[in-house]
Amino acid sequence: MQFLVRMDVRLPHDMPQDVADDLRARERDRAHEIQRAGKWPELWRVVGRYANYSRFDVESGDELHELLSSLPLFPYMEIEVTALTRHPSKLD
Amino acid sequence: MQFLVRMDVRLPHDMPQDVADDLRARERDRAHEIQRAGKWPELWRVVGRYANYSRFDVESGDELHELLSSLPLFPYMEIEVTALTRHPSKLD
Amino acid sequence: MQFLVRMDVRLPHDMPQDVADDLRARERDRAHEIQRAGKWPELWRVVGRYANYSRFDVESGDELHELLSSLPLFPYMEIEVTALTRHPSKLD
Amino acid sequence: MQFLVRMDVRLPHDMPQDVADDLRARERDRAHEIQRAGKWPELWRVVGRYANYSRFDVESGDELHELLSSLPLFPYMEIEVTALTRHPSKLD
Amino acid sequence: MQFLVRMDVRLPHDMPQDVADDLRARERDRAHEIQRAGKWPELWRVVGRYANYSRFDVESGDELHELLSSLPLFPYMEIEVTALTRHPSKLD
Amino acid sequence: MQFLVRMDVRLPHDMPQDVADDLRARERDRAHEIQRAGKWPELWRVVGRYANYSRFDVESGDELHELLSSLPLFPYMEIEVTALTRHPSKLD
Amino acid sequence: MQFLVRMDVRLPHDMPQDVADDLRARERDRAHEIQRAGKWPELWRVVGRYANYSRFDVESGDELHELLSSLPLFPYMEIEVTALTRHPSKLD
Amino acid sequence: MQFLVRMDVRLPHDMPQDVADDLRARERDRAHEIQRAGKWPELWRVVGRYANYSRFDVESGDELHELLSSLPLFPYMEIEVTALTRHPSKLD
Amino acid sequence: MQFLVRMDVRLPHDMPQDVADDLRARERDRAHEIQRAGKWPELWRVVGRYANYSRFDVESGDELHELLSSLPLFPYMEIEVTALTRHPSKLD
Amino acid sequence: MQFLVRMDVRLPHDMPQDVADDLRARERDRAHEIQRAGKWPELWRVVGRYANYSRFDVESGDELHELLSSLPLFPYMEIEVTALTRHPSKLD
Repeated sequence: MQFLVRMDVRLPHDMPQDVADDLRARERDRAHEIQRAGKWPELWRVVGRYANYSRFDVESGDELHELLSSLPLFPYMEIEVTALTRHPSKLD
Repeated sequence: MQFLVRMDVRLPHDMPQDVADDLRARERDRAHEIQRAGKWPELWRVVGRYANYSRFDVESGDELHELLSSLPLFPYMEIEVTALTRHPSKLD
Repeated sequence: MQFLVRMDVRLPHDMPQDVADDLRARERDRAHEIQRAGKWPELWRVVGRYANYSRFDVESGDELHELLSSLPLFPYMEIEVTALTRHPSKLD
Repeated sequence: MQFLVRMDVRLPHDMPQDVADDLRARERDRAHEIQRAGKWPELWRVVGRYANYSRFDVESGDELHELLSSLPLFPYMEIEVTALTRHPSKLD
Repeated sequence: MQFLVRMDVRLPHDMPQDVADDLRARERDRAHEIQRAGKWPELWRVVGRYANYSRFDVESGDELHELLSSLPLFPYMEIEVTALTRHPSKLD
Repeated sequence: MQFLVRMDVRLPHDMPQDVADDLRARERDRAHEIQRAGKWPELWRVVGRYANYSRFDVESGDELHELLSSLPLFPYMEIEVTALTRHPSKLD
Repeated sequence: MQFLVRMDVRLPHDMPQDVADDLRARERDRAHEIQRAGKWPELWRVVGRYANYSRFDVESGDELHELLSSLPLFPYMEIEVTALTRHPSKLD
Repeated sequence: MQFLVRMDVRLPHDMPQDVADDLRARERDRAHEIQRAGKWPELWRVVGRYANYSRFDVESGDELHELLSSLPLFPYMEIEVTALTRHPSKLD
Repeated sequence: MQFLVRMDVRLPHDMPQDVADDLRARERDRAHEIQRAGKWPELWRVVGRYANYSRFDVESGDELHELLSSLPLFPYMEIEVTALTRHPSKLD
Repeated sequence: MQFLVRMDVRLPHDMPQDVADDLRARERDRAHEIQRAGKWPELWRVVGRYANYSRFDVESGDELHELLSSLPLFPYMEIEVTALTRHPSKLD
């Protein structure tokens, strides 16, 4: 199944720098893992924002929720999920 | 340049069926052309809606506007454009 | 997969009564078919509105889109889809 | 009476971990009690969010408010309530 | 059960005057009936709008939906329903 | 004059319990006073929220503002005021 | 009593020119009458819009509603009313 | 030039009482100065809110910004500015 | 004075092609006149929309309203005006 | 490529004055650099707000993101980006 996901990160301004740096490093590692598993084929930064638009290719909504909630930044993100389906005009 | 594009189609309810059919056929042909040119790598139907999320890969915003306004359904679409850039966690 | 679906129906005020009646009769028949197939376990009218909240139990987003777009009222509905997953506090 | 309820949880980022854990454990226990009483037949996690969509089957709005405000996370939730009624196309 | 109901009326501009007058006369009659039955204790016009805020005192959401959908202007109204419950600071 | 008033209370999460309890006790006392003066004939809790819908019966907007800003919880409330007038279909 | 009123006019595009002209002429006459009665001390066009911001000085919300609904353009306006009161920093 | 200005004040809840009192006293003094200079002819409290609607009569947008940003409460206000122009139905 | 102006054009779908063409030709001519007068230094199409963002350099809000309402497409545009002032970090 | 950018600055109220002053000084320096490089031809303060509307002239969305995220105030800004293209009525 395909889902479009928009994630907006909002770190509290009083989070210590090293805590934030550690979170971001672990976020990157986890993002790499999920990409390597072939589950996260599209990942783009939104220009001007600490946000991304992504496409996930997963078995189900259950798997998507597990992946998203495994991200270290999950507690600091506003996430919007849109279910996608094949478009009739899409070329193979 | 990469852009996320959301298109929502709203055909007037009193449009004659053959006019609508013709518009949609021409829309499909134009969509195929743009995909074959490598400019429209992602094209997905939003579940439950006459809408799509797309990614365009173009030279500039000028080119994107030319492509979008060349679509036969353009006068009947609400289009939202978001500029994208490379994400630091994206694997090559 | 489970999806929450909100559907708001907006029939044009100038639609002839018999066309509207026929649409609604065919909508009911199709809704019955989908329910009998076990795909539409929850279906509730929103108080005060020509709208419903539903839960669909389907194989995928693709199947959900096929079901929704097979509804005779589909061209007259504003549909909002939310992907659901198992809740950790849900009793079996 | 049937109500659709959407709950979004927002714990303050500076809440100590053990306080949050205790709140969540008590929330789960209370959710189980209400389910066992047959008042909370539908409970689903929204994919990508610390939120749920639920259906409550209660005697009245008064009872629904008592149940919701008895949840330990109540002070940290944004709750949206929609009154439901039988849908004419619903099969028995 | 108590419900706050906001109704906004939107008659199509091309509705013939006599049709509109007839609708409004029948709306008034039906509103009187429901008030006489003790179901509609509060009914106020919103200043500057063709809209009202009302409180209904009914057995259930099912009854409220029956009452609202029995109003002749129902197909032309945008209706918002809010479930109410006793306020702890309310004097008897 | 009649006004519909919606009040949403938002106490800061770090307010000490005894301060909050004291505020709420004084709020209740003041609410009783205003009701006894016949100025606050409708007061209802919104189901699922720390909020109320009220009707005030006052001499003027000036008096309404004085009453609302005399409430101990006033600094912690989001208040929405709607001016009402007699509805032509209202029975005496 | 003082009220801020925002009015947005939306004439249907298919209204015949002479009907629109007549409506506007009668609107102007009525606006003059109300101003001469001292009830409409502030009346300003919003730059770039067929809209105005006004202040009305009336006895009550009832009177305001009577004045607004007596305007010939009333059926074509979206009207937003805000109750005002004396500001403590206002010089006499 | 004439501008409608809406100002909503939001003081942080943890601001010490004397700091807030001092800010408000200085705000009042500055508001008096600007009124005495004839620049702030309309100033009204919004009923039920710590907010005002004002009309400023200034040379330019530059002057308006200077006046607004000279207000001691400026850092704590959400300000909305609307450019106004003479209304054709306004009596001299 | 400087103003940012956003204009969204919405032509009715049933406007005859020659009427629309004529409107657009006259719009272009008028836009050229205003630019030649030095009043409209910035004019940009929004990518994917029949809309523009513009900056006007005018004497006053009155002049801006006269210019905007002189545009042949004015009755078909949704216009949003934002007053601008010199930015302290702007280089001369 | 041309982009319209709206930036709203929100500094935390508890940021020490010298930290804020330092941030603002560095912001100004960086803004000057980008302007001198010819990338930021339009920069205007929004009247009444700690916000600006800007036009950037850059090679790509990638470059725009690099410029915006190099601003010292970036973590404290809400930024909205709109892609622009040549307007057919624009005079050379």
